[in-house]
Amino acid sequence: MMVIMTSSHTEEDMNAISSRLDELGLKGHRIVGVERTVIAVVGSIMPELSDELETMNGVETTVPISAPHKLASRQTHPAATVIRIGDVEIGSGKTVVIAGPCAVENEEQMMETAQGVKAAGAHFLRGGAFKPRTSPYSFRGLGEDGLKLLAEARDETGLAFATEVMSEREVEVVARYSDILQIGTRNAQNFILLEEVGRTGKPVLLKRGLASTIDDWLLAAEYILNMGNPNVMLCERGIRTFETATRNTMDINAIALVKQMSHLPLIADPSHGTGKWSLVTPVGLASIVAGADGMIVEVHPSPDHALSDGAQSLNFKRFRQLMEQTDQIGAAIGRPLWSFDKQPAPA
Amino acid sequence: MMVIMTSSHTEEDMNAISSRLDELGLKGHRIVGVERTVIAVVGSIMPELSDELETMNGVETTVPISAPHKLASRQTHPAATVIRIGDVEIGSGKTVVIAGPCAVENEEQMMETAQGVKAAGAHFLRGGAFKPRTSPYSFRGLGEDGLKLLAEARDETGLAFATEVMSEREVEVVARYSDILQIGTRNAQNFILLEEVGRTGKPVLLKRGLASTIDDWLLAAEYILNMGNPNVMLCERGIRTFETATRNTMDINAIALVKQMSHLPLIADPSHGTGKWSLVTPVGLASIVAGADGMIVEVHPSPDHALSDGAQSLNFKRFRQLMEQTDQIGAAIGRPLWSFDKQPAPA
Amino acid sequence: MMVIMTSSHTEEDMNAISSRLDELGLKGHRIVGVERTVIAVVGSIMPELSDELETMNGVETTVPISAPHKLASRQTHPAATVIRIGDVEIGSGKTVVIAGPCAVENEEQMMETAQGVKAAGAHFLRGGAFKPRTSPYSFRGLGEDGLKLLAEARDETGLAFATEVMSEREVEVVARYSDILQIGTRNAQNFILLEEVGRTGKPVLLKRGLASTIDDWLLAAEYILNMGNPNVMLCERGIRTFETATRNTMDINAIALVKQMSHLPLIADPSHGTGKWSLVTPVGLASIVAGADGMIVEVHPSPDHALSDGAQSLNFKRFRQLMEQTDQIGAAIGRPLWSFDKQPAPA
Amino acid sequence: MMVIMTSSHTEEDMNAISSRLDELGLKGHRIVGVERTVIAVVGSIMPELSDELETMNGVETTVPISAPHKLASRQTHPAATVIRIGDVEIGSGKTVVIAGPCAVENEEQMMETAQGVKAAGAHFLRGGAFKPRTSPYSFRGLGEDGLKLLAEARDETGLAFATEVMSEREVEVVARYSDILQIGTRNAQNFILLEEVGRTGKPVLLKRGLASTIDDWLLAAEYILNMGNPNVMLCERGIRTFETATRNTMDINAIALVKQMSHLPLIADPSHGTGKWSLVTPVGLASIVAGADGMIVEVHPSPDHALSDGAQSLNFKRFRQLMEQTDQIGAAIGRPLWSFDKQPAPA
Repeated sequence: MMVIMTSSHTEEDMNAISSRLDELGLKGHRIVGVERTVIAVVGSIMPELSDELETMNGVETTVPISAPHKLASRQTHPAATVIRIGDVEIGSGKTVVIAGPCAVENEEQMMETAQGVKAAGAHFLRGGAFKPRTSPYSFRGLGEDGLKLLAEARDETGLAFATEVMSEREVEVVARYSDILQIGTRNAQNFILLEEVGRTGKPVLLKRGLASTIDDWLLAAEYILNMGNPNVMLCERGIRTFETATRNTMDINAIALVKQMSHLPLIADPSHGTGKWSLVTPVGLASIVAGADGMIVEVHPSPDHALSDGAQSLNFKRFRQLMEQTDQIGAAIGRPLWSFDKQPAPA
Repeated sequence: MMVIMTSSHTEEDMNAISSRLDELGLKGHRIVGVERTVIAVVGSIMPELSDELETMNGVETTVPISAPHKLASRQTHPAATVIRIGDVEIGSGKTVVIAGPCAVENEEQMMETAQGVKAAGAHFLRGGAFKPRTSPYSFRGLGEDGLKLLAEARDETGLAFATEVMSEREVEVVARYSDILQIGTRNAQNFILLEEVGRTGKPVLLKRGLASTIDDWLLAAEYILNMGNPNVMLCERGIRTFETATRNTMDINAIALVKQMSHLPLIADPSHGTGKWSLVTPVGLASIVAGADGMIVEVHPSPDHALSDGAQSLNFKRFRQLMEQTDQIGAAIGRPLWSFDKQPAPA
Repeated sequence: MMVIMTSSHTEEDMNAISSRLDELGLKGHRIVGVERTVIAVVGSIMPELSDELETMNGVETTVPISAPHKLASRQTHPAATVIRIGDVEIGSGKTVVIAGPCAVENEEQMMETAQGVKAAGAHFLRGGAFKPRTSPYSFRGLGEDGLKLLAEARDETGLAFATEVMSEREVEVVARYSDILQIGTRNAQNFILLEEVGRTGKPVLLKRGLASTIDDWLLAAEYILNMGNPNVMLCERGIRTFETATRNTMDINAIALVKQMSHLPLIADPSHGTGKWSLVTPVGLASIVAGADGMIVEVHPSPDHALSDGAQSLNFKRFRQLMEQTDQIGAAIGRPLWSFDKQPAPA
Repeated sequence: MMVIMTSSHTEEDMNAISSRLDELGLKGHRIVGVERTVIAVVGSIMPELSDELETMNGVETTVPISAPHKLASRQTHPAATVIRIGDVEIGSGKTVVIAGPCAVENEEQMMETAQGVKAAGAHFLRGGAFKPRTSPYSFRGLGEDGLKLLAEARDETGLAFATEVMSEREVEVVARYSDILQIGTRNAQNFILLEEVGRTGKPVLLKRGLASTIDDWLLAAEYILNMGNPNVMLCERGIRTFETATRNTMDINAIALVKQMSHLPLIADPSHGTGKWSLVTPVGLASIVAGADGMIVEVHPSPDHALSDGAQSLNFKRFRQLMEQTDQIGAAIGRPLWSFDKQPAPA
């Protein structure tokens, strides 16, 4: 850590800092520059030290040097993490796709969608049984009944599924039914919930918070990894910016950068990242090219009758086109779809 | 709701929308403008309708008209809500101050701080027993032992206290000890937790999320109010923007606007809103002038030894000055401090 | 335009609005909803009307309906604009690349770079002669001498070039030497300069402002188009958000959306959009896949001796790899590079 | 400057950096930490060095230490700058108010407004003759005729005036008529224009850019100061964030912080900062309490007929109330209005 002194600091201020560093078993190297004096602190630094030093007389600010995330970092774990669920590997270099409705609505819709996305080549199902909604007056999901329909759809199609868990108390029931536990953007820093899903050992799909920096996001992953659960997939789903023409701003830079910084698999969510179905395909394909290991896409048999997020859902035909284009572009960069049947599926 | 049609929509598109509105028992008025055609939808509209219509052919976008928050709105509840805790009223027109350390560290620190802020005129204590930390490797609070120390400090000083609750499972224990349940910025849209604190009926201090719009924030309050708990205080604590010279950007506009939109009391948090102790006083005073009913301030007997957030904590002397200035400026706008002793307290 | 009335508006308020609309030759349709009353205004509406109506009694807010950009819009001009410069077409469906140093530093650097990017397959040169710098103490370019070196490089290589113009007074001299006039992000809403480059009739590369919404950006293009100059290329170069791990946030959604909204060619700038050379290739390729017609890339013979923006510049080897990958991925989506020689160029 | 090495850097990388620093006459101190090695660079560092070093092998990133603004900084100029215009001092400790219409529309409106704001106690006039408008189809001001009306209004009332200059070519004419040259938010980093107004030596009101950090803003001031013009007033007018309930987000933190960082006077613009007249008074008062030396406010005789920005304009009655409250609150903090007549002015 670097401690940057104000231009008006005194020798006494410097001594006070030295004493405090001594107490903590740290070493401080003094560097006198043309305009500023800096103390370089060497040793095992607690995250709190920065706050403490910043209140001391003569200190202008502090600058951290080491990355705060250890377990998620490529520096400590250069090899890519590969997560195997059933027959499918995520993070292996081949591209995977998770697809399904935003919310599980009823048996017919769920079965039809599951068969539709299976026929189009999807590797996993998605579907919301417990739905976080900005307004308490919106449709909030079928709960455990939704989980049962998802499990039924898995039995029918052989596709494992991801579904969101919003509550510590529901982690057990959601983990019992599902293959992948999804943490939503609004719970991206619900640390209690992160530890709880960490304890299950199950694969976790961790969405980035609306206002999470890349550091915040990797530290959220760190909460799960730190419970002994290595099966974390990061999910970029757009951040909140001043631009309102799209629902969120998909952070394509973050996809490329996180793949350099971390060994964890990364899944792009162009449905939430854009909020418009006509942008899902171009932005989904772009995300794969930027480095994502896969994508999660909202598909609905008739998007104009969906109970939520219809505006960003693809119908089956458009989803099949997305799969074909993903395979083609993926092939051009050596990352085609995982086990994809190029023959058009029967309608 | 307004449905805005693309310039290339067909008569068939219009008819499909009409049929769907009919099915839902809604009426659509067609308005043909110079460039665009719009359908004004009248009736009791579900929040999901917007998503559904946006996927129909010929629809460009939809525009909601009614405010989605009912219980938090001044339109349905013009009189200001006043929350009484012990002898103190919040939202009554007089200004209240909640003060204490970021984290409860030990008995000595807690008692010294409680007595210090009491002597300076604070109306409530604050202190974190369960601490949400961005990194799992940071100090995360004393837990129930911290609650006990807070209760002890209350016994000593007579000041009721606010403390954060992070977990559904801990709502019961936190509610048992504390007077005000605080929901932190990272749980601002943890809807399960909001409903759980709603059920307790206890006063809730609801922080705005880092990326919550004013609408999101009022809808989060709606979750609590909707459980039959009217005792909600909103807390503006800064939002995340591109500016990094301060920890957050205190949204002074939101303070003024929310007081017009909602009947709920509003508390400003200049400690987190700025992240720098030298800005706490000017921004805290400004918040009161903009309309806040009170403020919550981090105070520490020796901020340079605090285990968290030292950089934004005031010492006792600066806190006393803040109280005096708040009373003086508050008096100039008819909102002096609640029962404040103008005589300097003994050191 | 929709005028949304407050829930407490009076009949008198409604009449005042009707009278004002009559004065302006507009028609107002009254729609009485369950909670709100709305007036739909039909006619040729001046942009100022919104401000005026919002101050009238009983009005809560107004909502515009028509897109404010006419000349840039695909609605009024469905066919894609193709700009021909020398032998190269931009916006034709094939991908083009503009490459060169951030700043023109001296003859040797400029010639070496021009030959290097030519050998790698670039279609145009770039290079800054007049440099906008956040600090007045930074290197600000060679001015007209830089333009001369660019022209010399064009003579040598046959590549036309783009260069920034920062000042109304320099439009004439920059237009005299260069083939494409670049408007930088800090001048994205310098309306005087926009009109001035509009008057030249020359191709303009219009960067998006750091805080420009898509609407702002298209309206900036409108200033140029409105002067009778149809040769506008839009350039997405990242927006400013809370994320600081990258220099800017490349708005990949905007690339896909703007191609749907507007007929103008769109060029991606992954160098400024990311600020890190290691992200230029993945984000540049992703931008093409999302819909960009080309990209502009900073290349420097020895980036670690560049006088500006070295951190985001590619060397020749990495640039050649980018060209090859662009061609390959472009081919997979039917948009290969414009006239690209697949044989590795001699070193 | 600190150069932070990657964890995989080599001794050769370190040597290459040392050689380069030697060439530049700088010294590098090597600090070996637990996880990272850092080189502290001492000497007179060019702003470009950071970019250059970041491309060298083994370098992860660089961290600047010195503040880049010299002339605007309180460190080099501890005493507050006071600007005297006519009889009025800005930055003296008393509060000043600049008021008038957004745009000069015609003689009657301008005279009526000038007399109205004079009667209410304003110290300066404002009014736009050259108007920057997001759309080329909006009303763009009367140009030089507007300047003449402003000068006439000054002759009538004795109030000096501020008006925006958008074009290098118009600096001369605007400077000839006006007392304060205003640089608008969209030209906040139009460096050519900044230097041009710097050359005039006239007082400049420099608005913060929509996306300018505090550092960017002070460096923009630096451009003007660097031309030998010390008469710079900074103007906080809100930044662009994700919140759309208000037109901009007034950065109250920036007001308090900039007064600590810089000796320049700071004027708050609550009209643009909020975009709603009902927020102008609370946010304007809050800005003064946070440390602003004055405010600039839009006033219009009949805001509902204004040609621009009516929604954020005060009428005379509300403006008089704002003046009275400013004086009262200002008095409570030792910064009352400059020479204010407490007797209600005749209607």
